[in-house]
Amino acid sequence: MRADFPRDRIFFHGNNKSEDELLAASAEGVGRIVVDNLDEITLLARVAAKREARTPVLLRVGPGVDAHTHAHLLTGAEDTKFGLDIASGAAEAGVRAVLERPKLELLGFHAHIGSQIRDIDPYREAVERLFVFAAEMRGKTGVVAREMSPGGGFGVRYTMDDPYTRPADMAREVARTMAEAARRHGFADPLPDLTIEPGRSIIAPAGVALYRVGSVKHGARTYVAVDGGMADNIRPTAYGAKYTAVLASRVSGDDVTDVAVAGKYCETGDILIQRIALPLPRVGEVIAVPASGAYQLSMASNYNMAPRPAVVVVADGHARLVRKRESYADVLAAEMG
Amino acid sequence: MRADFPRDRIFFHGNNKSEDELLAASAEGVGRIVVDNLDEITLLARVAAKREARTPVLLRVGPGVDAHTHAHLLTGAEDTKFGLDIASGAAEAGVRAVLERPKLELLGFHAHIGSQIRDIDPYREAVERLFVFAAEMRGKTGVVAREMSPGGGFGVRYTMDDPYTRPADMAREVARTMAEAARRHGFADPLPDLTIEPGRSIIAPAGVALYRVGSVKHGARTYVAVDGGMADNIRPTAYGAKYTAVLASRVSGDDVTDVAVAGKYCETGDILIQRIALPLPRVGEVIAVPASGAYQLSMASNYNMAPRPAVVVVADGHARLVRKRESYADVLAAEMG
Repeated sequence: MRADFPRDRIFFHGNNKSEDELLAASAEGVGRIVVDNLDEITLLARVAAKREARTPVLLRVGPGVDAHTHAHLLTGAEDTKFGLDIASGAAEAGVRAVLERPKLELLGFHAHIGSQIRDIDPYREAVERLFVFAAEMRGKTGVVAREMSPGGGFGVRYTMDDPYTRPADMAREVARTMAEAARRHGFADPLPDLTIEPGRSIIAPAGVALYRVGSVKHGARTYVAVDGGMADNIRPTAYGAKYTAVLASRVSGDDVTDVAVAGKYCETGDILIQRIALPLPRVGEVIAVPASGAYQLSMASNYNMAPRPAVVVVADGHARLVRKRESYADVLAAEMG
Repeated sequence: MRADFPRDRIFFHGNNKSEDELLAASAEGVGRIVVDNLDEITLLARVAAKREARTPVLLRVGPGVDAHTHAHLLTGAEDTKFGLDIASGAAEAGVRAVLERPKLELLGFHAHIGSQIRDIDPYREAVERLFVFAAEMRGKTGVVAREMSPGGGFGVRYTMDDPYTRPADMAREVARTMAEAARRHGFADPLPDLTIEPGRSIIAPAGVALYRVGSVKHGARTYVAVDGGMADNIRPTAYGAKYTAVLASRVSGDDVTDVAVAGKYCETGDILIQRIALPLPRVGEVIAVPASGAYQLSMASNYNMAPRPAVVVVADGHARLVRKRESYADVLAAEMG
């Protein structure tokens, strides 16, 4: 809202949307509520009753496809907190529950099958299952899906070892897969609208994290300690996520040596990069970590009471501060001292 | 500072203290700087030069003892970002570097061997190694350790499966272990001061997290979704940490069923408790998670732009708000919109 993004283009997701959140979304005319569960349908119907217009919804379903285990596609019901599972009949119950609410308008279905996907196959399988389900619901209830959202999760290249998938190629493949499945299942005239969610693949490579070196310690490994770490990027600690780095002040030229890039927080596991070949950094130099735009500051904490960093947008020779560096006063603002 | 804690009782830790932080600590008369590395000694000496009084320091050393792998004590040098390793000679270099700075006063040694320790044995080994090292340094340089800090890490009971260690018993054992080692190595007259760091064992059991149920979903498992999760408690997602829970409104009486307590954030891994037997929760009921006082709000984020929760202190029939619930305005305060 603050950024004045067009409300009708917003999709509101979540497995536990509160009444306050749904009221706010309704008041603002948010484009789609992606309904997750039966309790939410009950709640949303109550909220929607207060509006003149019908509230447009997609139903999040579980197609039983996991991007990372699609060899095991046929195991049936999926075990996830998200959505209503197709195989068990829960998704059908969801469709019927939405259709029973006159102020809710079921426009189609959403599924999200994972993250860091580099391969079209799991999408193809998920899209196929979405259309099989949509055709079944059309037959049983008469509802015709006009929108389909097979989610996002397109892979991002964090290190040079990661393959590079061009977003345009992935989008084209998903679109073709959708169109083929739609025609196969009698949804060709008109084709349903396709929604994709390429957030991480856009924002991750757009961000570069800059850290200043505070100490260099030689021992079992060479630890280069920087003025950030798990508070601004929990992903290496929490998920074993891999990043690469360059020494911003001396990108090339010098002999390189293997170092660990350690954060400054009070945990042994606070290591941003376990092993990276760099010209041996000196105290005061800056290390740049590419592909730092997604799931980092959005998950940043004030661990050890550390203020969170600033964000600067750089383009065409200009730099603009878009997020202020926090102060200690900011960090303590909520404390009733 | 804001809480007006006595400055001389503060120990300032960290593997990458910035110059600004050391200047602030120096200006405030912080009791001990626990020096981590050679670069910090250089920096601290520069900061200390501006003060009349000498700056009291402990040196953080790596004793080569890990609480969780103490079967492998004899592998020599430890691989951690913290402190200066004894076995490799790095710790001795640290002692000499401090002693060369006339404005730094080396009072003794600190080590921290892990967390969730339930057993005195790793402490005994670490304390022994601290004193062996201290005796060696006394012989080589004349410096006499007057303070010893074998850290903290006393185990906390998160679930009923965790053993209960009385903090008083652990403290008594550590003190006796210290005194014995001191006498054995000629540090008996007077005994060095003992510092312990029992933070988590105090604050973890002091906190109870309260969550309200937003949906109950039956499927492969029964998912009870609550109005919190990995943004206020990253530990289950990041470390596989285990918690227990009770249904606050119906602690006992009803038949219980196995449920998963799921958070509301946009990750499949956002599960606070994988499996817990509870009376089947209803939407709107409150789930209480004990032992939630440590490493939770201190690591809390605004993931999914969610405001962080309030903290209420309850004692003797009174309740007092000590930390305000964040608002959306707070969450967006740093954005330059």
